[in-house]
Amino acid sequence: MRGWQEDLYRDLHRHPELSHHERRTAAKIAERLGRIGCQVHQGVGGTGVVGVLRNGDGPTVLLRADMDALPVREATGLPYASTDTVTDSGGREIPIAHACGHDVHVTCLLGATQLLAEGTDRWRGTLVALFQPAEETGDGARTMLDDGLAELIPAPDVALAQHVLPAPAGHVGTHAGPVLSAADSGRVTVYGRGAHGSMPQAAVDPVVLAAMIVIRLQTIVSRETSPGETAVVTVGSVQAGTKSNIIPDHAVLEFNIRTYGERTRSAILDAVRRIVSAECQASGCPKAPEIELFDRFPLTDNDPETTSRVAAAFGEFFGDRAGPMGRQTASEDFSDIPNALGVPYTYWGIGGIDPETYRRAEAAGRVAQDIPVNHSAAFAPVPQPTLDTGSQALVVAALAWLGR
Amino acid sequence: MRGWQEDLYRDLHRHPELSHHERRTAAKIAERLGRIGCQVHQGVGGTGVVGVLRNGDGPTVLLRADMDALPVREATGLPYASTDTVTDSGGREIPIAHACGHDVHVTCLLGATQLLAEGTDRWRGTLVALFQPAEETGDGARTMLDDGLAELIPAPDVALAQHVLPAPAGHVGTHAGPVLSAADSGRVTVYGRGAHGSMPQAAVDPVVLAAMIVIRLQTIVSRETSPGETAVVTVGSVQAGTKSNIIPDHAVLEFNIRTYGERTRSAILDAVRRIVSAECQASGCPKAPEIELFDRFPLTDNDPETTSRVAAAFGEFFGDRAGPMGRQTASEDFSDIPNALGVPYTYWGIGGIDPETYRRAEAAGRVAQDIPVNHSAAFAPVPQPTLDTGSQALVVAALAWLGR
Amino acid sequence: MRGWQEDLYRDLHRHPELSHHERRTAAKIAERLGRIGCQVHQGVGGTGVVGVLRNGDGPTVLLRADMDALPVREATGLPYASTDTVTDSGGREIPIAHACGHDVHVTCLLGATQLLAEGTDRWRGTLVALFQPAEETGDGARTMLDDGLAELIPAPDVALAQHVLPAPAGHVGTHAGPVLSAADSGRVTVYGRGAHGSMPQAAVDPVVLAAMIVIRLQTIVSRETSPGETAVVTVGSVQAGTKSNIIPDHAVLEFNIRTYGERTRSAILDAVRRIVSAECQASGCPKAPEIELFDRFPLTDNDPETTSRVAAAFGEFFGDRAGPMGRQTASEDFSDIPNALGVPYTYWGIGGIDPETYRRAEAAGRVAQDIPVNHSAAFAPVPQPTLDTGSQALVVAALAWLGR
Amino acid sequence: MRGWQEDLYRDLHRHPELSHHERRTAAKIAERLGRIGCQVHQGVGGTGVVGVLRNGDGPTVLLRADMDALPVREATGLPYASTDTVTDSGGREIPIAHACGHDVHVTCLLGATQLLAEGTDRWRGTLVALFQPAEETGDGARTMLDDGLAELIPAPDVALAQHVLPAPAGHVGTHAGPVLSAADSGRVTVYGRGAHGSMPQAAVDPVVLAAMIVIRLQTIVSRETSPGETAVVTVGSVQAGTKSNIIPDHAVLEFNIRTYGERTRSAILDAVRRIVSAECQASGCPKAPEIELFDRFPLTDNDPETTSRVAAAFGEFFGDRAGPMGRQTASEDFSDIPNALGVPYTYWGIGGIDPETYRRAEAAGRVAQDIPVNHSAAFAPVPQPTLDTGSQALVVAALAWLGR
Repeated sequence: MRGWQEDLYRDLHRHPELSHHERRTAAKIAERLGRIGCQVHQGVGGTGVVGVLRNGDGPTVLLRADMDALPVREATGLPYASTDTVTDSGGREIPIAHACGHDVHVTCLLGATQLLAEGTDRWRGTLVALFQPAEETGDGARTMLDDGLAELIPAPDVALAQHVLPAPAGHVGTHAGPVLSAADSGRVTVYGRGAHGSMPQAAVDPVVLAAMIVIRLQTIVSRETSPGETAVVTVGSVQAGTKSNIIPDHAVLEFNIRTYGERTRSAILDAVRRIVSAECQASGCPKAPEIELFDRFPLTDNDPETTSRVAAAFGEFFGDRAGPMGRQTASEDFSDIPNALGVPYTYWGIGGIDPETYRRAEAAGRVAQDIPVNHSAAFAPVPQPTLDTGSQALVVAALAWLGR
Repeated sequence: MRGWQEDLYRDLHRHPELSHHERRTAAKIAERLGRIGCQVHQGVGGTGVVGVLRNGDGPTVLLRADMDALPVREATGLPYASTDTVTDSGGREIPIAHACGHDVHVTCLLGATQLLAEGTDRWRGTLVALFQPAEETGDGARTMLDDGLAELIPAPDVALAQHVLPAPAGHVGTHAGPVLSAADSGRVTVYGRGAHGSMPQAAVDPVVLAAMIVIRLQTIVSRETSPGETAVVTVGSVQAGTKSNIIPDHAVLEFNIRTYGERTRSAILDAVRRIVSAECQASGCPKAPEIELFDRFPLTDNDPETTSRVAAAFGEFFGDRAGPMGRQTASEDFSDIPNALGVPYTYWGIGGIDPETYRRAEAAGRVAQDIPVNHSAAFAPVPQPTLDTGSQALVVAALAWLGR
Repeated sequence: MRGWQEDLYRDLHRHPELSHHERRTAAKIAERLGRIGCQVHQGVGGTGVVGVLRNGDGPTVLLRADMDALPVREATGLPYASTDTVTDSGGREIPIAHACGHDVHVTCLLGATQLLAEGTDRWRGTLVALFQPAEETGDGARTMLDDGLAELIPAPDVALAQHVLPAPAGHVGTHAGPVLSAADSGRVTVYGRGAHGSMPQAAVDPVVLAAMIVIRLQTIVSRETSPGETAVVTVGSVQAGTKSNIIPDHAVLEFNIRTYGERTRSAILDAVRRIVSAECQASGCPKAPEIELFDRFPLTDNDPETTSRVAAAFGEFFGDRAGPMGRQTASEDFSDIPNALGVPYTYWGIGGIDPETYRRAEAAGRVAQDIPVNHSAAFAPVPQPTLDTGSQALVVAALAWLGR
Repeated sequence: MRGWQEDLYRDLHRHPELSHHERRTAAKIAERLGRIGCQVHQGVGGTGVVGVLRNGDGPTVLLRADMDALPVREATGLPYASTDTVTDSGGREIPIAHACGHDVHVTCLLGATQLLAEGTDRWRGTLVALFQPAEETGDGARTMLDDGLAELIPAPDVALAQHVLPAPAGHVGTHAGPVLSAADSGRVTVYGRGAHGSMPQAAVDPVVLAAMIVIRLQTIVSRETSPGETAVVTVGSVQAGTKSNIIPDHAVLEFNIRTYGERTRSAILDAVRRIVSAECQASGCPKAPEIELFDRFPLTDNDPETTSRVAAAFGEFFGDRAGPMGRQTASEDFSDIPNALGVPYTYWGIGGIDPETYRRAEAAGRVAQDIPVNHSAAFAPVPQPTLDTGSQALVVAALAWLGR
């Protein structure tokens, strides 16, 4: 199995696809699921794929992997690095890379499915192998649900998912309770008044206004959020103007908020609105700002009982390569699926960094500096033992319900 | 003459061309100069055109018009508004418009040349009608000089130029001494460290850094420049990041500086460097910032004697439609030509706004709000009396030297 | 006992004393300890007082209360509100108030001592009742240690302390592990160049500089600290200039930092130094800034075993009025004492708000708005059941070691 | 005359008095005016003094000198340097010095009055020698007007005043049109919510708010004011908080605005109000800010005809020691008097620096560094030729109206 798995991983890595455009990836998945002997549903929510493997009466376990890649220019130097690009509506060329490791997730879930298909004597019940599109934009899970996922598959008893992280490959980590933050993205457009750069008095300068807003937004975390509360407000993008000597008439900021509770979340969103609106008044803007929210991610709050069952199974199988995992500030839309289906879930992490490399960085106190993190241009899990571990983890966790 | 002039004006307006790409415009000019009977030099400094009209012994007067347009989306609603665009190297579509009135300048200089060609009995000497490309990027004049302009034309005794302004059409204004600022544009690239938006601690956030720089740069004018000194520091563009939830690894700011004296200019440039460098240190940037200067414009400092000769001629011809003009904060590269040739010069303004519209705005105290200024998307001089006045002004000023 | 306790509480409340000036308070304490029958040491570290009560062989328990008040103008409207003031070296009148509840701590520890003195048949060993000055400035504990505290008292087996909080009176709360942050205060003096307010170009404006520093310091928490890490950077004071029209030549900022780990602490202090230094460079200061640290508070990290022993005793005595307490962002120098003496410790909270008032605020979701917190001008614990509960808590906790 | 003048100058210099407290100075003036033979009005607007000298029919000329000193600690090292102080309401000792040269003004006007009194054969009409208190606080002129000045004196035909400047003694300078700015001071109090420094989430931090306001106010000059317009916005003082670890509940800023036209003035004041109010909204302040204006100074706008008459008289008398003077960014309330009386005025400058010292500083290009300016602790005009020149200038200017 290792052969096709590693080949597939490199192939997916070389040919990443953006959210909702995972057509080639979906075809590869469906082809492999069919070969394994699953019932296959393609095109669920656009590019989603579901494989169902029935093995007599028993519980139903849903395993989920996400499929999409990111608009990042890969800088790993790997022989199988992506050089793929797409052209956006404005004519710009967008690079694409699997900088978040979803290629690992897909490959491992296919591997786990094959392992379970090959060992039907050791379990009973039903496996649902769900390949979800568009995790990065936070709407892939809902798209599948909106497209009738619940009617398409047997009702699961539990839902399980995993993510590859900048930790030593071969290791798995679990965490009960809130593990991934809720996330909200938003786009702020502020309107000034344009003028020639030599006539500021005729303008309402949106560049200065945008700068004041960026600065002010820092105070939401530094002053308005309880120090014990985990929250992040990032302005990931600011765009204003086209020329040095023309004061533009608007500026656009895109922000992202991470929270672990609804009260904090809504307090921060209120603060963003209050600050943007007041700063526009301070500038004397001729027009009110626009704030548009998008890419909302739910909280990932691992069910304690489910997590402890998985953790126990991991401990037995992986020994001291299994352990606890800290809370992550990242976000996921996986929980939309179990939440919609009304079933408990847990979501664990697997390492993707060459263990020796990691050990050296750790010894030098340089993990933060030397180990690339998810979404960075240099992030690419090593094929092994990442793929073996990820496949095994899914099987081991599933068997905690399905095992005889 | 009015017929072809107004047609040409509308045609040029409808088909603007960016700096150094004024090929169609140059062809139109050369064609008309040839028809008028000038000796014509095309392709001087790329797209520059010079017409020489000799009329016996006597002084040589150089009249100059600039030809290029701006990357602005025209919003005048005129039937002859530009809808032309070009595609830049990144694949983006760039709109173009004659938002600075260079179409007026070209048309008037062609008109003045024809008037002088038709009235050779009233003057003697030599007229040099110079059509300069790339005024907006500040390097068109030097490009022509570098391409041998001095050898190509008879040495002028004086150089004259004009600009259409948001003042009542039919009026002309002169100003002795510094009338247009020196201008310097620059591009600042600051380098942070990118990370996922949920991990600010792993990043050096260039969005926050860029905001601090924009804010700090305000203090150069508010605190470091003598209140009696005219100076402007504009950040016309700030670009950082592409996604709400990824902290980018760099930000780019473009700025423009206007000054009326070398000491102020260099003090401000020093302050920009000091501030950018220190703010990068405050952020703990992993890499020093880059500051690249471009689009330098010289000071336009009208020769008092030349100006007074032109002002006297205007007073006689235009009566109370001639008057003084205030200092402008805009910039020009016209003075590069007389400075290189070692001759005195003056540069005057003509109005381009419908007089009745202007009068009403003035009466309502709404000139700043209602009258579009150069470089704004709504700026477009009315054809008449703008074209007549601009043509006459050039003839009247030239005759102050050439007249019998 | 209630009689003298409540009288003493009101008397101390009415006559608060600033750090290291707790002379009247110390006299009252010594007088009461003597009356109870303790061996009394006065003047330990200036104004510290220690009472020792020996009751045969057995463990030694140190109970500690802090004595000092704050420069706050009391706004409780209580009949026994403080109106006391002192005059500082600059001639300014400084109001004083027990806005942190140390009057409660003193009164309860005296009460507990009397209860234990009255019930010697129920315990054996030694009680050390330690009254510490100058907790608010963070150096009272060290002053006592530097003055030979270790030699003066029998070596304790455990050290215990408590603090009154904006929680319902009658309740006690415990917390194992880090419960109070480390705190560091600092004073930043930045040097500009003064000038008349009409001549900013002759000045380096320290007001603008101080503002930039305050703004920049926000980014330490918002961008440089891990979102999961609890940290606070507060600028509590900024002072610059004396007149509207004179640009001063320096500005002074005082800041306070709260952390729960040495690595975070030193990273934040480094960031403060980096930012202050770079902002001074951005302003072009003629002289380097000065950063002076003062009022360092250690981390209060409750020993788990000690805490669980106290928690068990509380549970038995107080029933459902005992419970867990969250981590507090405040700081204390109590732990300097057990750390210096090499003994385990725990530090718990008692409520001080009228339970009915608290319940109503909670029901209305207005605790944050309606319940005054420590250090606010309106903070004053209700005498009962606060004093009873605080006295009992000390006795119950002490008996967990001393009880027969 | 030189004898008593120089003695008086040194005496006034040694015993300066703050605004509205010029009692000793007023007594000295009244005594001298009486001795000269004037009709004397004392106590006009508190400490103002007016001497009237009638000499038959003819025009009436008002000459004005200001009398008050500054809260500055003199650092001239002169034998007659001031060491006087007063104690303010808070008990602080305030040093006083004639750091603005009003002692020169008083002495010269007394000298000029004596010269005119001694030479009544050379002129006719009426001289009004007005000694005004409280120029530094900008309300002395109005206080005199409010106290019935207009009814007390004959209606003048012209009003004249002078100021000693850091220019070579012996020289006089005139300027037609706006010569001194209008000035407005204001006090902004912003209200946050106080809390312990470890609980920013319970606070609305007025320190951060004040910093944002200071930063934002910079944009009034850098972005909202026409680059050709002279304007200054200085925040001279910011005060917030008393301790590093307590977030205060308010902050106070004092600002000063300099303008040369009412439109700019009111636009800037509007901008201050808009910015302060909006920043308080951005912070979510529980209470609206307060903005209180004080120390308003009017524009000093020299009447062109009056100025040219004085300039001609100066040219004739002083030769090449008379010349033009640049616009000053300082402010004065002198113009309140002629404006209230409806008469034209001019205000000129006289030098006060030893000519040789000045020449050397100029030759070394070190005027800005070496020559102390008004309001600096080292400013003290040399007695001669300052006093002679100032006395003569007043006489010469007055005679331009009164001379036979």
